[in-house]
Amino acid sequence: METAKFVLAAIPHGLDPAVLIGVVVMLVAAKLGGELFERRGQPAVLGELGAGVVLGNLVIFGFTGLEGLKTNETIAALAELGVIILLFEVGLESDLRQMMEVGSSSLLVAVLGVVAPFLLGWAVSAYFIPDEPMLGHIFIGATLCATSVGITARVIKDLGKLATREARIILGAAVIDDVLGLLVLAIVAGAISAAAAGSVLSMMDVGLIALKSIVFLVASIAIGHSLVPRMLRGAGRLETRGVLLTLAISFCLFLAWAAAKVGLAPIVGAFAAGLVLDEVHYKPKDGRTERDLNDLLQPVSTVLVPIFFVLMGLKVDLRLFARMDILGFALVLTLAAIAGKQICGLGVVERGVNRLAVGIGMIPRGEVGLIFAGIGATLMLPSANGVAEPVIDSATFGAIVIMVIITTLVAPPGLKWSLSRKSRKKRKD
Amino acid sequence: METAKFVLAAIPHGLDPAVLIGVVVMLVAAKLGGELFERRGQPAVLGELGAGVVLGNLVIFGFTGLEGLKTNETIAALAELGVIILLFEVGLESDLRQMMEVGSSSLLVAVLGVVAPFLLGWAVSAYFIPDEPMLGHIFIGATLCATSVGITARVIKDLGKLATREARIILGAAVIDDVLGLLVLAIVAGAISAAAAGSVLSMMDVGLIALKSIVFLVASIAIGHSLVPRMLRGAGRLETRGVLLTLAISFCLFLAWAAAKVGLAPIVGAFAAGLVLDEVHYKPKDGRTERDLNDLLQPVSTVLVPIFFVLMGLKVDLRLFARMDILGFALVLTLAAIAGKQICGLGVVERGVNRLAVGIGMIPRGEVGLIFAGIGATLMLPSANGVAEPVIDSATFGAIVIMVIITTLVAPPGLKWSLSRKSRKKRKD
Repeated sequence: METAKFVLAAIPHGLDPAVLIGVVVMLVAAKLGGELFERRGQPAVLGELGAGVVLGNLVIFGFTGLEGLKTNETIAALAELGVIILLFEVGLESDLRQMMEVGSSSLLVAVLGVVAPFLLGWAVSAYFIPDEPMLGHIFIGATLCATSVGITARVIKDLGKLATREARIILGAAVIDDVLGLLVLAIVAGAISAAAAGSVLSMMDVGLIALKSIVFLVASIAIGHSLVPRMLRGAGRLETRGVLLTLAISFCLFLAWAAAKVGLAPIVGAFAAGLVLDEVHYKPKDGRTERDLNDLLQPVSTVLVPIFFVLMGLKVDLRLFARMDILGFALVLTLAAIAGKQICGLGVVERGVNRLAVGIGMIPRGEVGLIFAGIGATLMLPSANGVAEPVIDSATFGAIVIMVIITTLVAPPGLKWSLSRKSRKKRKD
Repeated sequence: METAKFVLAAIPHGLDPAVLIGVVVMLVAAKLGGELFERRGQPAVLGELGAGVVLGNLVIFGFTGLEGLKTNETIAALAELGVIILLFEVGLESDLRQMMEVGSSSLLVAVLGVVAPFLLGWAVSAYFIPDEPMLGHIFIGATLCATSVGITARVIKDLGKLATREARIILGAAVIDDVLGLLVLAIVAGAISAAAAGSVLSMMDVGLIALKSIVFLVASIAIGHSLVPRMLRGAGRLETRGVLLTLAISFCLFLAWAAAKVGLAPIVGAFAAGLVLDEVHYKPKDGRTERDLNDLLQPVSTVLVPIFFVLMGLKVDLRLFARMDILGFALVLTLAAIAGKQICGLGVVERGVNRLAVGIGMIPRGEVGLIFAGIGATLMLPSANGVAEPVIDSATFGAIVIMVIITTLVAPPGLKWSLSRKSRKKRKD
């Protein structure tokens, strides 16, 4: 038989066994770290991050066995798929209808909750690390914008306070915050790309990016709104459970791809996909569908999402924290992050609402802050001497990680305290 | 802030958007193909394979948009993770206890079911494509050995015949077949590696590989047997569902890595991991655990496994089938595959058992045959003119795929016919 023209390479082959054992180490470490933190009433995500930090810094003690994981492309691809699935889940948790209903308070809280931390972060960065380019300061401001809906929602749910007015304002604002934060990210990333190409982003360009993001989100939601119910009804007819999950994940990856094609981050598309599917679920008829999809998605995210957070932790070099300037900058950044979100409590227009609780509820940055920082680490900007450098270097990345850890750690006990404080007051009345 | 030494590359980045849309196309095509075949009472795997063949041959009509998928490394990595998860599931479906209980009939059927197709395949290959190296013939013989437990078990279950003696013999033999087939694969792959290095595998080496495989399987099962129950009991105490799935997948990937480290295929380790976990499940106490783990694993395999089969289909070049010699070879190979498994019906020592049904039940090669062929496509062997060529070239690969399709397609209706034929006879008595 003659030699075939096509070499049938890369089937069960090409996967470095190091990836197999790497995933095992990352998953087991993530679960141990997550369990440790959950038992202390803290979000599991902190434990996963911490596990990554521990693994990533074994090199200090001379253990270099895990260094390859930090730059392994398959691990990076799995981590990116993980963060796409995560934002899809966050979108599913967010309720488009709720966003519409809570109205002016949520919108005002959200806008203040984006603008205040953004400006504070920018100012703090410009004051404390003046040598960085201005776009670097702006990007640091952007990392302070977003609120982690997942963490806030879970804490409020665990406290049994989902029905309170404060909870509804916080959740509504957190959802709008996510969208606004992604918008800020798109604009800042666009400005950086322009700068890397030697040009400057005009107000026109900023408007275009904002328009593109809004058109993309509105169009995805509009098209999805008319398409998805039919799609799911069709899937229901096919009976097999696999069809629903396959369609949902395909829809998520499709919008992630579409977002990338129009110049947005893939996670924006994944989030939009979640929002659309979410809306369908909240129709009573499809109540069964909602639980099914979340149940089906959970095992996939259980396996993929921790890889993202452990990889994030792996890349934190603890040796940098011995430097007082980084530690100092991290603390200043944390104060700016907390203060910025306290200002947004002023956006509550209704009376009798615990503004402190709203402000505290908006504090956790969680995964969204890390994702922003991760994107900043991949954006290159020409420095003073002409060499391209990442907008977020590893020192700043470390400071942002510290900020994320502290804000995420502080919010759950803070929220618990401020919400029960209000209950006590009510009981006295 | 000074330039950091570590470049924080490859977080949400590095993933080519083409992978996102590629996975979408592959998953949607797989579901459509699978649904089409399932509705006709055929295994979904054939539809997934067919979908891949269609997508992979759009290039004939000038559409080259999917050509990149055939060699994309991330897609290949996802496909390999898919086949590892699949063999893990097959291991879970196999029952170690059942293997022990069915005794002599199963063992004899299994041994005949490996030896007869192996020798027939070797002979047919040597007769029809004499120009290929002898190790190529042997490898083709090896691809005819394995029985697809998954497909056979599902067909018998769908027919409601799981409790019959025939079913128990077939399932027991199919399980032993899988182990023997993997052993044959390990030996043949070892012989090819030796030949590629310019040496010849002695009987001593063959014995060593067999010993290594058996020691690996026995050691994994023995260690797993004492370790896994404790592990799962510990996981049960941690309550969160994610822990059980994480531990199970970590255990699977760990044994896959260990298998690769001792020179076996990673799928051997994944299969052993499934066997061990399976055994734990069949203890009544852990009945709940079993359903949970299968339920949790299903979404993961729903997403990953089709990528493997569609990629397999993608690599089938239909233009090669226009050549009569390939088509002819495929049909001869199919006859050898069917005849070889009919011989194994003679291994049934008990009286009153439908030997034809046992023989037919052993026919489907399914995923296991494809996996073998895929491995053969990655093993390189120096040809007559000194250039390294894959043991299974794309023409032979195409012939093997045709053989897999026909054997898998023929078995379900054949089994249905022969089992109901026996029932009718019984009713007459």
